[in-house]
Amino acid sequence: MNASDSTTLRLVADCLDQPGIVAKVSGYIAQQGASITEAGQYEDSRSKTFFMRYVIATPTSGFSIDDFSEGFKSIADTLNMNWRIVDVSKKQRLAILVSQHDHCLAYLLHRWKVGDLPFELPSVISNHDTLRELVEWYGIPFHNIPIRKEDKQAGFEATAEKIEEAAPDAIVLARYMQIFPPWLCQKYRHRVINIHHSFLPSFVGAKPYHQAEERGVKLIGATCHYVTEELDAGPIIEQDVTRVKHNHSIRDMMRLGKDIENTVLARGLRYHLEDRILVHGNKCIVFA
Amino acid sequence: MNASDSTTLRLVADCLDQPGIVAKVSGYIAQQGASITEAGQYEDSRSKTFFMRYVIATPTSGFSIDDFSEGFKSIADTLNMNWRIVDVSKKQRLAILVSQHDHCLAYLLHRWKVGDLPFELPSVISNHDTLRELVEWYGIPFHNIPIRKEDKQAGFEATAEKIEEAAPDAIVLARYMQIFPPWLCQKYRHRVINIHHSFLPSFVGAKPYHQAEERGVKLIGATCHYVTEELDAGPIIEQDVTRVKHNHSIRDMMRLGKDIENTVLARGLRYHLEDRILVHGNKCIVFA
Amino acid sequence: MNASDSTTLRLVADCLDQPGIVAKVSGYIAQQGASITEAGQYEDSRSKTFFMRYVIATPTSGFSIDDFSEGFKSIADTLNMNWRIVDVSKKQRLAILVSQHDHCLAYLLHRWKVGDLPFELPSVISNHDTLRELVEWYGIPFHNIPIRKEDKQAGFEATAEKIEEAAPDAIVLARYMQIFPPWLCQKYRHRVINIHHSFLPSFVGAKPYHQAEERGVKLIGATCHYVTEELDAGPIIEQDVTRVKHNHSIRDMMRLGKDIENTVLARGLRYHLEDRILVHGNKCIVFA
Amino acid sequence: MNASDSTTLRLVADCLDQPGIVAKVSGYIAQQGASITEAGQYEDSRSKTFFMRYVIATPTSGFSIDDFSEGFKSIADTLNMNWRIVDVSKKQRLAILVSQHDHCLAYLLHRWKVGDLPFELPSVISNHDTLRELVEWYGIPFHNIPIRKEDKQAGFEATAEKIEEAAPDAIVLARYMQIFPPWLCQKYRHRVINIHHSFLPSFVGAKPYHQAEERGVKLIGATCHYVTEELDAGPIIEQDVTRVKHNHSIRDMMRLGKDIENTVLARGLRYHLEDRILVHGNKCIVFA
Repeated sequence: MNASDSTTLRLVADCLDQPGIVAKVSGYIAQQGASITEAGQYEDSRSKTFFMRYVIATPTSGFSIDDFSEGFKSIADTLNMNWRIVDVSKKQRLAILVSQHDHCLAYLLHRWKVGDLPFELPSVISNHDTLRELVEWYGIPFHNIPIRKEDKQAGFEATAEKIEEAAPDAIVLARYMQIFPPWLCQKYRHRVINIHHSFLPSFVGAKPYHQAEERGVKLIGATCHYVTEELDAGPIIEQDVTRVKHNHSIRDMMRLGKDIENTVLARGLRYHLEDRILVHGNKCIVFA
Repeated sequence: MNASDSTTLRLVADCLDQPGIVAKVSGYIAQQGASITEAGQYEDSRSKTFFMRYVIATPTSGFSIDDFSEGFKSIADTLNMNWRIVDVSKKQRLAILVSQHDHCLAYLLHRWKVGDLPFELPSVISNHDTLRELVEWYGIPFHNIPIRKEDKQAGFEATAEKIEEAAPDAIVLARYMQIFPPWLCQKYRHRVINIHHSFLPSFVGAKPYHQAEERGVKLIGATCHYVTEELDAGPIIEQDVTRVKHNHSIRDMMRLGKDIENTVLARGLRYHLEDRILVHGNKCIVFA
Repeated sequence: MNASDSTTLRLVADCLDQPGIVAKVSGYIAQQGASITEAGQYEDSRSKTFFMRYVIATPTSGFSIDDFSEGFKSIADTLNMNWRIVDVSKKQRLAILVSQHDHCLAYLLHRWKVGDLPFELPSVISNHDTLRELVEWYGIPFHNIPIRKEDKQAGFEATAEKIEEAAPDAIVLARYMQIFPPWLCQKYRHRVINIHHSFLPSFVGAKPYHQAEERGVKLIGATCHYVTEELDAGPIIEQDVTRVKHNHSIRDMMRLGKDIENTVLARGLRYHLEDRILVHGNKCIVFA
Repeated sequence: MNASDSTTLRLVADCLDQPGIVAKVSGYIAQQGASITEAGQYEDSRSKTFFMRYVIATPTSGFSIDDFSEGFKSIADTLNMNWRIVDVSKKQRLAILVSQHDHCLAYLLHRWKVGDLPFELPSVISNHDTLRELVEWYGIPFHNIPIRKEDKQAGFEATAEKIEEAAPDAIVLARYMQIFPPWLCQKYRHRVINIHHSFLPSFVGAKPYHQAEERGVKLIGATCHYVTEELDAGPIIEQDVTRVKHNHSIRDMMRLGKDIENTVLARGLRYHLEDRILVHGNKCIVFA
């Protein structure tokens, strides 16, 4: 799936369901000498909404993404469509926020370094200074912005400023143990990705492994979701579980949970980076 | 694991943790010329409770389970132990309760018929008449005891009477869509096994697949648990999940869920039938 | 996914990769007043082959599938396309072949009866008489056609005749413990679905659970595949595994394996019945 | 699982099956004022061999492991038992061997640093210099010992020397892309742990992901096993799989496989470090 000098695009769109959507869109693509190499499509029958994701190979010479998008706009307008076209070769910029647990961060940094997860990483921001050494070893700027109980608002404003400096396309909360304030959720709507260390909606909030041990469940899990104003209730991107037994202590669960948290976050983040997710109400359509 | 004419026993016990438990118990077993072929053991450090399950091969001649148990009683008394010794060859008697969904029942009947699940089945009881033909094909008595909204108490009393006639060791609610009254839960404490069609504690109560679809989870599950007075909150025996996607309808989930419900119920029931479960507070210790 | 009186079609096609395939196909569909409700698409870069599967909702009045197909033919011809268009409401006809193990058969019959697996079942054929009662309870004709060691050819010819009488769209080997002769494989190419009780390519041939126990694997599996001339080497449709431990006997594995065999076969068969599989060389493209 | 100043021991043993083993062993333990907190036990009926693993809490004062072991020896002698008693607080020493793939190494180093995997790490040895920086960041000595095609014997002798300097209890081949010579396998019998990137016995040898892609399997896996003279045929400790689809390239499989390789190796290594594995012929009994 490499590119040479041709451009690969992703088109992600939704609109009211109506006849001829695919014909109009694919007709336009063919006219431009481009071709569709991957297609995902879903029709929600209750809301009569149509969702699509195309990967498009464009001609190797004389192609302009701006002209292509401009031309597509007139098609999309006739369909009253929400859409975006992105150049696959342009990596998204991320800001990663962490507290003191290092496993998700270490995982993302390693996968980023070897090229398994394609993103730019202008900044890691933390309310603690604990993980500075790890981050700086990878050559990434690390910013310690404390969140003080007595003035959380000030802490989040400073954090928001640091985020803004990084100009991220998306924000990853890689075990950031602070509840994101509503105004920040709204500002980066459907662009803040959290990993919660339980199988939601079980065990919302603090200390989910303690809650799991208390309830005596036989599987523990992790959930990657977009952050919304309501705690741990945003659209779910990805989930997974692992088996536990009566003799697993909370510490064992925390250890076992790390692998699940890492892989669920990485899968969810990859879906986001590859524009595979369309949010529909409080649910995620994932063209995996 | 065949028997010839020797007797295989299971010893299941718990007591306060103290030195020498294993030595005393295994010493007694050795004295009787018997030997331990499987051992499960767990020590709960918070409650200082010790749990054990032994499978014991006894001598082929001159062995009496009554004498063995009588002798063991004096050991157990010194340890202030809760215990039971069962003869593996004696199958437990079950009463199965169902409503109209047939998949769990069909699964249990098939596995019972081919000898995969060892139990006696004196009776299937239902608040509907729908599954009579299926049950009677297997040669099992089927009792239709309706539960009428306007007099549930009468319905449950008639049901309890039918259960009593069957004299079951355990009761299986194989998708019995009625809430068991507290007095019946108490009467058969830790002997009523339910299959709930969600990954508990997510989606307690009615229509869990509808709840799952509404929340947009990426895995659906099933939970086998002992029934207690609080709805869907009893000790969890076994759980499992299967993957769903945005394009799965509630009907798809119900279809996919059947396999999970069946296998989770069968695993949980097997643990119960093989005396592998010790209930400790609201949790199950399962020597699987 | 209900139908009212409109017709839902499936278009399954492959051709050499070239620009404008989607535009031509979807353009034609739009012209006919129909719309694409599900789309699966794959491009194999090595062989430069394009594969597609569309689900198409047609207009409620004045629609003729014959006219639609006739018109599509001229588009397809310009693309040198292999294709078929099927009416979703027309169930495929199956012939199921079994020997003496009943679990896969019992599973398929139950799922068929409750409408979870949509097919017509004109005939169950077996080289033993063991499962007659089960099959006839479901009101399905049962044919016992023995395969005698001393004249297998005659047995298979009689079997082929019985299959032909059933005029099946596909044949399911639901634990049919006979090696299908090459001439039968060829006659029903990519239409004979087998369930093999191992994770292929591990443990080809006879007694895979014995082989698994001998090797000491920690997971056992099952594989659903199309039958070809080479034993257990045909295109793989679906696979799954379950965990085993050192204390699981071969008998335990056989018991645990049943659930995996059933669910893997049912998933694979469903893919086939819903025209989700395109065979490419020795591999299956599955638009799941 | 905390220690205070008492000593926790592990007793691992096997002998011919005979009456009274548990009684004798647990009787001795009780006599010494110690108690059994975890018990694993297995009886192989074909070879009439008995296997056991006990975790033993010893008295807080006046306890000597040497005296305890000395006393146990006379019991063990009467049973003709193979046995070892280890002090849980004494971490095993590992030598890790790698080539150029860094994921398993990075995973082990991270888990080691945060205390999730308890071992001493005197040395990482590699036939390449690629991973030096990573290893040295963790403060671990890194030794580059090339294995040259034209004189592999010399390379392995130098490697063996470096291993000997580290005096390891076990050797981990964390994607060491060299076939261990028989004399080294024999020298460290059942102490060399390999991670193979396929679900064995499928895809033995080189490039298993290429083999998996070629065969069109629907799950890929990893296997942790002890290294023996026959390539990828040693006793299997642990295995797991992950799902792949027709559109996964070999590169995708390699990326997806990393998580499985890491977690399977970590689980297998943990079993080894906690003395949970008893090798019996070519199989592993794992008291997990």
